Formats: sequence, C-alpha cells, structure tokens
Amino acid sequence: MQRSHINFKGYLLKSYRKELWLNIPSRLGFVNITPEVDTALRESGVQEGLTLVCAMHITASVFINDDENGLHQDYDNWLEKLAPHEPINQYRHNETGEDNADAHMKRQIMGRGVLVAITDGKLDFGPWEQIFYGEFDGRRRKRVLIKIIGE
Amino acid sequence: MQRSHINFKGYLLKSYRKELWLNIPSRLGFVNITPEVDTALRESGVQEGLTLVCAMHITASVFINDDENGLHQDYDNWLEKLAPHEPINQYRHNETGEDNADAHMKRQIMGRGVLVAITDGKLDFGPWEQIFYGEFDGRRRKRVLIKIIGE
Amino acid sequence: MQRSHINFKGYLLKSYRKELWLNIPSRLGFVNITPEVDTALRESGVQEGLTLVCAMHITASVFINDDENGLHQDYDNWLEKLAPHEPINQYRHNETGEDNADAHMKRQIMGRGVLVAITDGKLDFGPWEQIFYGEFDGRRRKRVLIKIIGE
Repeated sequence: MQRSHINFKGYLLKSYRKELWLNIPSRLGFVNITPEVDTALRESGVQEGLTLVCAMHITASVFINDDENGLHQDYDNWLEKLAPHEPINQYRHNETGEDNADAHMKRQIMGRGVLVAITDGKLDFGPWEQIFYGEFDGRRRKRVLIKIIGE
Repeated sequence: MQRSHINFKGYLLKSYRKELWLNIPSRLGFVNITPEVDTALRESGVQEGLTLVCAMHITASVFINDDENGLHQDYDNWLEKLAPHEPINQYRHNETGEDNADAHMKRQIMGRGVLVAITDGKLDFGPWEQIFYGEFDGRRRKRVLIKIIGE
Repeated sequence: MQRSHINFKGYLLKSYRKELWLNIPSRLGFVNITPEVDTALRESGVQEGLTLVCAMHITASVFINDDENGLHQDYDNWLEKLAPHEPINQYRHNETGEDNADAHMKRQIMGRGVLVAITDGKLDFGPWEQIFYGEFDGRRRKRVLIKIIGE
C-alpha cells in the first residue's frame, strides 16, 4: 500500500536558522532535543520543507532513535566496545595532547546529523522517532545547528 | 577535472510526500526500493531538487549501496558480528520485554536514510548506486518516507 | 542560550550542480575537499539553502571531521579492525571477482555524504568542521557530487 500527497502549487522559499547550546556534565551522554526542534519549527512558520539538525562539533552527534534509558546505556557500552577510550595512547590523534580520538570515531558511527521532512507544519515522524544530541567528549559548551528551508 | 551546471533562473518551490509500506518476512533483510523512488519522483514532476528517503522506524535503515546478493549476506554477517542479537540479556533495552536492542545498533551503522539529488528530473546517481531498505527487526509492516522538494 | 534568525521574505529557488573527480593512488586515503565545496558555493551564488556533498561510488565516503593527520591514521586502523580487507575470501561479495567487500562496509560506517547548511553565502560550520573524501578502494578515478539548492 502506498499513500502519496503532491503539492503542485508553487511557493517562495523561506529559511530559518537557530543554534542550541548544550553542556553535558559527563564525557558521554544523550539528550532528547525534539522539543527544541519542534519549537524552532513553529518559530519558522515553515509548512512544507526540510530541517537539518546537526552537531557543530566533531566529537558529537545528532541522531534519531528511541527515548529509552536502557537503550542509551546499551549505546554507551556498545560504542565503548567498538571505539574504546582507553588506553589513550593507542591513538595517534592523542599524541597532539588530546584524549578524545575515540570520540571522533563514536561520532562517525552515530552520524553528524539528521534531515527531517516537514509536512503540514510538523516534523514528519514515525511512531517512535525522537531526535537526540549524542555527546562523546563533554564537560564543555557545544552547539547544535537547526537549519530549516521550505515554505 | 570538474564539470558544473548552474541554474540561475528562479523557480517556485514544490513539495511531494509518499509512504511506502514493507513487510519483511524475516528478522533481517534488504529490499531494493529504487524503482519505487523513481516512480515517486516521476509523480512529483520535480526537475531540480532533493529527495529524502528514510525509514520511519528506529530498527530499520534506508541506505545506498550495491545490488549484489553476496554483499548483502556479507552485511548480515558483519552487522551480526558488530552488534550480535544473542544473547538477548546482554542488552538493558531488552529488559523492557523487547528482544531488538541489536536492531537499534545495526540501524545506526547503516543509517536512517539518504538524501539524493534530483537533476533533470532524475535521481542523480553514480554507476552502481541503488537505494535499499534494510530491515533489522522484521516480520511486521513498516513504513519508508519519501519527501521531495524542488521545482 | 539560543540564537535564531528567521528569513520571512520569500525567494525563488535556485539549483547548482558540480562534479569533482579524484584519483587516490592508494587503496585507502582521505582528502580535504572543503576548498572545492567553498568554490562551488561561491559559483552558485546561493546565500541561504542546503548543499549536499556525496560520493557517487559505493566504496567511498564524504564525511565531516578534523583535518588532523594522526586522526586519519587512527581512522585507517580502526576501520581495518572493524572491517578487515584480509582474508579476501571471508566475504561472499569477493566471489564475484572483486576484492573490495570491506570497502563497502567501511563506507557504511563513514557514510555516503553530508548535508551542509548555507547561511549568508557561507558553509555554516562549527570551529573544526572540514569536509573529507574518504576512499576505501582507490587507484582509479571517482566522482563526488555537489548539489546546492537555495536562494
């Protein structure tokens, strides 16, 4: 079964931009930022279009998944297994004085950002989709970019 | 060498939305949905723009890769190695009564969706690019969203 | 703290397309293509919008991360651990005569491409974001697609 909706009227393009600032108190952490993206969408007034939500830092992610605490602990353990923080000296990047090479890897698995369709002025989501900020090298202020284009 | 094409005429924005429904009979599976996306693009009439194709469920992916059976078996084995289904009780998420924590991880590696350029009314693809639905927790009906914006 | 900018004037949609050709002399390699994307953006004249930058080949990636040599060596080692090239015969895909099944996996971890916001005629980046072409099966000419839409 397929349902489709075509909008043949043409519209002028509008754009909107917003930054969110976050400061995660631990090295790793996940925050549900769906309410903030919802607010931004309402402020933009865009009814049909696309919204990009992405980390502006290269040791963090924005991704879409489930708002379930156990799953987030599973992500922590799993990412630590795939890209362990310790020993620090296993990474060449850490010879620069950093200790966050693993965070650059964890971020690649979880992705930099997401693109969400806007339909009828709403984030066009399936039943369980929620937008998360994923921090892999926290304890400092970081930014998320929301960019909306559409009409 | 670089080739470029600039379209300086301005156009009014059009949008299009369609849902595809799939029911994969096994837990894991890959389906080539390029023909369905092609059809949607023709229906939309959009000549220049972008099309988002994404899973509306958080234990599934839409990704672009090769339509080769052996490779898909390799993906199955590889994802099972990186995020094993068994033992179920290794994941906190499965304490909620689910058994699909691994599917939430496999989906992060393969991604939620893809964004494809539209040029001259066609999906702007390299020689082997094909769009796949990747299922990691099947045996029930799930949706893919196609959202097209452009002119 | 949140900062936002809304553009309520409507604009006509413009589109721009460019291909970059690359030939990486080794099997694996990373190239910073930010200057080429900057040039494309200037050529397009787009002030507000989105730019898609993606590999047109399914054994390569375009991703955003740090321009740091040690980190790129770490990525090499890490991807080789997660999806080893050898032994070739561990992959069904390689029974077709190919030896690049691992490259199809490495590309899924690093992603097919990126979507970058355009604000005030510039790539809307955080402090360290740079765009890289990631090659996992090189020694031949391959293409990157840049598609810009906006006003």
